[in-house]
Amino acid sequence: MSISLSLNSELQPATASGEQAVSAVAKLQDFLTEQAEATDQDGRFARDSVDALVDAGVFAASVPTDLGGFGVERLHDLTVITSRIARADASVAVAYYMHIALAWYFARVVRFEADGEPGYLPRAEWLEAIGRRRMLLCSAVAERGADYWNLATTATASYNGWVVNGHKILASVSPAATHFYCRLKAVRGEGNHLASAMIPADTPGVRVEDDWQGLGLRGSGSGSVLFSECVVPDNALMVRGPWGKRDAGMLEGRAVSGMGLNGVGLGIAEAARDHALEALTRPSSSRKRSGSAVKAAVTEMEAALTAARGTLSAALQDFDSLLLRNKPQVVTDDMSRAMMKECQLVSMTVERAATTVVDLAMRLTGGASYQARHPLARAYRDVRAAAFMPPYSPPEEAVDFVADTTLGLPEARTPGPQEGDR
Amino acid sequence: MSISLSLNSELQPATASGEQAVSAVAKLQDFLTEQAEATDQDGRFARDSVDALVDAGVFAASVPTDLGGFGVERLHDLTVITSRIARADASVAVAYYMHIALAWYFARVVRFEADGEPGYLPRAEWLEAIGRRRMLLCSAVAERGADYWNLATTATASYNGWVVNGHKILASVSPAATHFYCRLKAVRGEGNHLASAMIPADTPGVRVEDDWQGLGLRGSGSGSVLFSECVVPDNALMVRGPWGKRDAGMLEGRAVSGMGLNGVGLGIAEAARDHALEALTRPSSSRKRSGSAVKAAVTEMEAALTAARGTLSAALQDFDSLLLRNKPQVVTDDMSRAMMKECQLVSMTVERAATTVVDLAMRLTGGASYQARHPLARAYRDVRAAAFMPPYSPPEEAVDFVADTTLGLPEARTPGPQEGDR
Amino acid sequence: MSISLSLNSELQPATASGEQAVSAVAKLQDFLTEQAEATDQDGRFARDSVDALVDAGVFAASVPTDLGGFGVERLHDLTVITSRIARADASVAVAYYMHIALAWYFARVVRFEADGEPGYLPRAEWLEAIGRRRMLLCSAVAERGADYWNLATTATASYNGWVVNGHKILASVSPAATHFYCRLKAVRGEGNHLASAMIPADTPGVRVEDDWQGLGLRGSGSGSVLFSECVVPDNALMVRGPWGKRDAGMLEGRAVSGMGLNGVGLGIAEAARDHALEALTRPSSSRKRSGSAVKAAVTEMEAALTAARGTLSAALQDFDSLLLRNKPQVVTDDMSRAMMKECQLVSMTVERAATTVVDLAMRLTGGASYQARHPLARAYRDVRAAAFMPPYSPPEEAVDFVADTTLGLPEARTPGPQEGDR
Amino acid sequence: MSISLSLNSELQPATASGEQAVSAVAKLQDFLTEQAEATDQDGRFARDSVDALVDAGVFAASVPTDLGGFGVERLHDLTVITSRIARADASVAVAYYMHIALAWYFARVVRFEADGEPGYLPRAEWLEAIGRRRMLLCSAVAERGADYWNLATTATASYNGWVVNGHKILASVSPAATHFYCRLKAVRGEGNHLASAMIPADTPGVRVEDDWQGLGLRGSGSGSVLFSECVVPDNALMVRGPWGKRDAGMLEGRAVSGMGLNGVGLGIAEAARDHALEALTRPSSSRKRSGSAVKAAVTEMEAALTAARGTLSAALQDFDSLLLRNKPQVVTDDMSRAMMKECQLVSMTVERAATTVVDLAMRLTGGASYQARHPLARAYRDVRAAAFMPPYSPPEEAVDFVADTTLGLPEARTPGPQEGDR
Repeated sequence: MSISLSLNSELQPATASGEQAVSAVAKLQDFLTEQAEATDQDGRFARDSVDALVDAGVFAASVPTDLGGFGVERLHDLTVITSRIARADASVAVAYYMHIALAWYFARVVRFEADGEPGYLPRAEWLEAIGRRRMLLCSAVAERGADYWNLATTATASYNGWVVNGHKILASVSPAATHFYCRLKAVRGEGNHLASAMIPADTPGVRVEDDWQGLGLRGSGSGSVLFSECVVPDNALMVRGPWGKRDAGMLEGRAVSGMGLNGVGLGIAEAARDHALEALTRPSSSRKRSGSAVKAAVTEMEAALTAARGTLSAALQDFDSLLLRNKPQVVTDDMSRAMMKECQLVSMTVERAATTVVDLAMRLTGGASYQARHPLARAYRDVRAAAFMPPYSPPEEAVDFVADTTLGLPEARTPGPQEGDR
Repeated sequence: MSISLSLNSELQPATASGEQAVSAVAKLQDFLTEQAEATDQDGRFARDSVDALVDAGVFAASVPTDLGGFGVERLHDLTVITSRIARADASVAVAYYMHIALAWYFARVVRFEADGEPGYLPRAEWLEAIGRRRMLLCSAVAERGADYWNLATTATASYNGWVVNGHKILASVSPAATHFYCRLKAVRGEGNHLASAMIPADTPGVRVEDDWQGLGLRGSGSGSVLFSECVVPDNALMVRGPWGKRDAGMLEGRAVSGMGLNGVGLGIAEAARDHALEALTRPSSSRKRSGSAVKAAVTEMEAALTAARGTLSAALQDFDSLLLRNKPQVVTDDMSRAMMKECQLVSMTVERAATTVVDLAMRLTGGASYQARHPLARAYRDVRAAAFMPPYSPPEEAVDFVADTTLGLPEARTPGPQEGDR
Repeated sequence: MSISLSLNSELQPATASGEQAVSAVAKLQDFLTEQAEATDQDGRFARDSVDALVDAGVFAASVPTDLGGFGVERLHDLTVITSRIARADASVAVAYYMHIALAWYFARVVRFEADGEPGYLPRAEWLEAIGRRRMLLCSAVAERGADYWNLATTATASYNGWVVNGHKILASVSPAATHFYCRLKAVRGEGNHLASAMIPADTPGVRVEDDWQGLGLRGSGSGSVLFSECVVPDNALMVRGPWGKRDAGMLEGRAVSGMGLNGVGLGIAEAARDHALEALTRPSSSRKRSGSAVKAAVTEMEAALTAARGTLSAALQDFDSLLLRNKPQVVTDDMSRAMMKECQLVSMTVERAATTVVDLAMRLTGGASYQARHPLARAYRDVRAAAFMPPYSPPEEAVDFVADTTLGLPEARTPGPQEGDR
Repeated sequence: MSISLSLNSELQPATASGEQAVSAVAKLQDFLTEQAEATDQDGRFARDSVDALVDAGVFAASVPTDLGGFGVERLHDLTVITSRIARADASVAVAYYMHIALAWYFARVVRFEADGEPGYLPRAEWLEAIGRRRMLLCSAVAERGADYWNLATTATASYNGWVVNGHKILASVSPAATHFYCRLKAVRGEGNHLASAMIPADTPGVRVEDDWQGLGLRGSGSGSVLFSECVVPDNALMVRGPWGKRDAGMLEGRAVSGMGLNGVGLGIAEAARDHALEALTRPSSSRKRSGSAVKAAVTEMEAALTAARGTLSAALQDFDSLLLRNKPQVVTDDMSRAMMKECQLVSMTVERAATTVVDLAMRLTGGASYQARHPLARAYRDVRAAAFMPPYSPPEEAVDFVADTTLGLPEARTPGPQEGDR
């Protein structure tokens, strides 16, 4: 009987495509683990790990099989793949997810044949480029001192196309990216708009700083990218709406990408738990294992993992039910709010669980885990990032968002003007 | 688009059968709610509520349709039905679940055609009796000062059949039961055995005390049942194994029934949350709603519900995958341990979430909820029962069980002799 | 060596006066405990317990010795006395504290010779009346649907004095009170004011309903008191400030009384812990005691008590340093805000600790504690009251108050107009 | 009015001596803060900071004034001094405390004139050496894979004195130490004993590795110290008891030193809180400040600090009452157990509070605090050390110790043989 209890063991891919990708990751597990230690210590981008995953086709997981990918369609599977990478290296998992969430979104647009329609930037040829390992995406959104609705990067309409200027930060996987998918302010005669643009890395004026020095996720390549007078053609930019308006509809995209990112936290927690159990089941730990504190901690660790896996997998099923039937951006405002709310609450649950598991794993392992290079010391630094990767932005308003949405308050429905515009 | 996000709203039945039963409960919601207040106040069994659910076919939910039931096969659906009853009255939900978990087990045995086999007591005619509203089951296991493995109730072999003597407590729904499904010690020439017996309520010597006076669940009829020289025929008793041996295989049954019982906690939490939101969304609460503490509490309440729903529904899916494919009692020892472990951890998660939700709902509602008859005051008393309904027994060993199982320790595999036998 | 570790054992009175009162309580411990069970079950005021404590001089604890009291001057000691009463009966402890906090405040006013000054209502003769057992005070502040700043009870100036009308609730100890110390709105020609008034219980028009039916604290006599056209002389009422203005200075009084009230939660927790340990140290619990969950729970219970005792006693020392040197109402606004902040934070700590201890004590004791009349079942209901006795009002704004005070925000300094006035 | 509320603001020294030392630290605050960043980044011992504190007399704080110190006698004051250092640099605070806890113990022995008695190693001249800045102590106890009761370092009796061989780890402040106070196994003809020895750093055979590479406390110099055939005179070693026996009486010393070490956690928390408030009160944070999540987090941060300060200061008062009246090692076994229990529980409270405060401070500060060099990122790494500095050893048995002591179990009273001896 091959059926296992997923909450007790591990989330499984839901499809054969997912299984293929998970197997590909499994084969690289030892290499990724080894690299993780080295790149973390040096504080450098885990380029070799990314290359290995690209070669193994994992960065093309969501590309249809006829275009060279594994054809993974479910967010559930993407999340499981991400969690497996994170077990070896959370930095690489973040780098991977930032790319694959976009690639998966592109595939979804194409699957619903929306790629020719207005309001959708992604194009079928991009999928093929990803499938052929010619395209690796970096999501360039964040800026210093700005939130999601209030960006200083601009694309100004000109005779040659759009001219982009700006300074993005936290651009994970940027040192390996061939393209930057940017969120920016489009400036044209008739007024400003919020827009997305696809900018090739070899565009003159693009500079990747590779300057990430974080407490954790040190191999994720989450440094700065500068755009100075970069010219992009008209069709590489899509206007999403008037500047200064918080668009509830846009929450869908953030909710979806935020949900899958929980795979990182889950993977960190699973690896931490395995480290602790490995230490505890050594013969030399026999006296230790009998301590009440040890048993209580093991049980709490398992409980936290159960809650994380259960909540995340149930939510992914909720999301996949919606996503497999609907093309992007057609859900109602109420539904996109509901998705964002669910994403927030699930992320809270997974973050808390992962933090708890790492904490307990360190206690169970003892002082050795406080050595700078111990995998659990790295997990402790990596898991902290979850507090700063919330899908809602500005993050400190997330509680107000969830509460107002729950209470059905009018303020929850008509987002006010942005602070930056006042 | 009718798809909703189940973690944000409510768990849905997975099958049409389940939906039918849930609808039947929905029609009785107001009646049950009204009765709940009255029976709680008087501290008496909610007989009218049970009768109404019996009449509506809900007590026959797991009986095949051709025998008069709704044909609910999934534990998921049973749990959802139970949670909906619990929203109105947790007492009745417990009473219901104690009956339906058995009825569902009987149906499962019959579905796999195991009812004629040795090692299985349930019989097809019982299902029909339940379908025809002629049979209502009470699970009579607990005894004062004894745990699951260590019982004082005996069935002594005699010329006429087995003679049962004993004093059971916490026998929920006992005042309405037509039959008692008992766990006891079978005493025969060749030694003692652990056994199950089905004892009709009209057997001479059966006395239902209807004496339950709990802090909560006051309408659940969880009083004592006495058996004095009750004679039951040979075929109403099944020997399960030698006395004094903890049988890991038996964990399956307890894990399954423990898992579904979480529907009670979920329903209590959902009702508590609804009460609080109702109070908060009144026009007079406008100032209150803007408080930071209020918003933070609403968000935590939603997060707790999300974790409870997600963890529970994912676990039920895990369980149903196994249960729909395997007849009872064929899983390996390792699998039954794994099931019990998952049941424990999920129950911890749901209990904590439900406790948190009731706590926050009271705070959000304010001092009014501290009035003796307020529904939240009842929820506060009812939800506490979850701490004392753990599937593992003795409950204080649950942490050791989970930890030892996780660590794969030998002590976890060969349960020692019972205390009572020493 | 008689020195003990107070955090491990129990808070001790700091003075001989305090010790005298504590001894007097100790002698009544068994009687109070017995009464507690009976009055809780019947849901009636614990009159005999109050009478016994009055007879033993405990209700006069804060009255100077020459006027018949024990001369307790420290809030620390009052809190310890209250905690000792609460071990036997939390209802009586609340009833007691509501009286003694006022009596102690009166004594403080008199000690600083402020009783003749404008702005101070208390009078020396009241102390003597309390010392002679002729006066028992009830603090009548709360009203349904109103907060501290927004009251419907009025005192209208008339030819004969003030005419009081109103309906107070949650007036603990009211069935035994000889006087009601009321907060109300004084209505005179020149405008409305916030005021305090001392109203004898035998004033025509006073009606004590004795109608308290709470989830817990059932013996505290916390019912309604009605005032219908009650005439009180001019000198029994003191105007405190213009109506509709939140007066930071008034926070001092509330902070002081709120701080000492934590003795109730501490006492509940201590008694709950003792019950659990008593059950666990019985010979029959030997197997139970060895469970990891049991040991972890005992340790957490002790940790919670340590934090509650430590935080409360350090805070009381902070407060007593101030209170012993300053007459009432002379501290700056900043200091009274700081006192209220400290009171809030300490109350949070004690409430959480007490809730945790009761929870763990029930788990350690097992299902027996879920019987309606079990002392831990009562503790579970009683301890919940702490959530609804916060000194800040309206309570849902407490978090905003603490945060704004901490951040030094202007909004924290100039309380806005009351909602009721809009 | 200069009285402040210590729980709201900061713990104050209780004596003028303490105030002097605290002032000396205050003057160095900026220098220490600056050094902290540099040494943490390089992962090197904070030698300049230690030197500066030595020069300022802070390392001689507990030395009587006539011998060149400040004459600090209270553990309370030592803890406050340590907390103030920790605000600037937790590494230096740990380094400091490891020295000063010994120096304070020596002073206590001398104060009670026990320095000539058998059973006491400390000598008056050592105090003078510390007062004259000629002696800086390192406590060398820990060994890899060994616990407090089970050490591999030996002192073998020889013609010249004792010959010490061993490998100590986690020897904080070792790179600056002039002397190592070691715990080891004394091997003599008649059997093995547990012993303490004072070994000058310039003894041939002593090698300080200065090899500490921890997740945090990177400037604390907590590396290895090797002893190879080091000869120490007879009077530099004191036998404490037979080898292999856990001596409850020895718990006193560990409890005392463990208690004061909580100053480190408190200081880390206070600095983290100040960072967060500083960021929040900037004009640019005005929108942020109004978020419910922000206000809730600020309140929780203050609550955690209140509990930490209150519990710690009350416990220190408990301890000082005992310590000021009794010479070392005269308390009963029961009392030393009680002290260790209180130490454990207080340490749990402070650790949890400090961890909570750092967590919330990072959330309030936002992503900036996830930069590798941010003070809060350092605090996050430093505060984790608290989990591995428990006074009880082996630490995983602490819960059993507290529970068994609380339950008064026999196993709590007669510690069994050491694992290593079996």
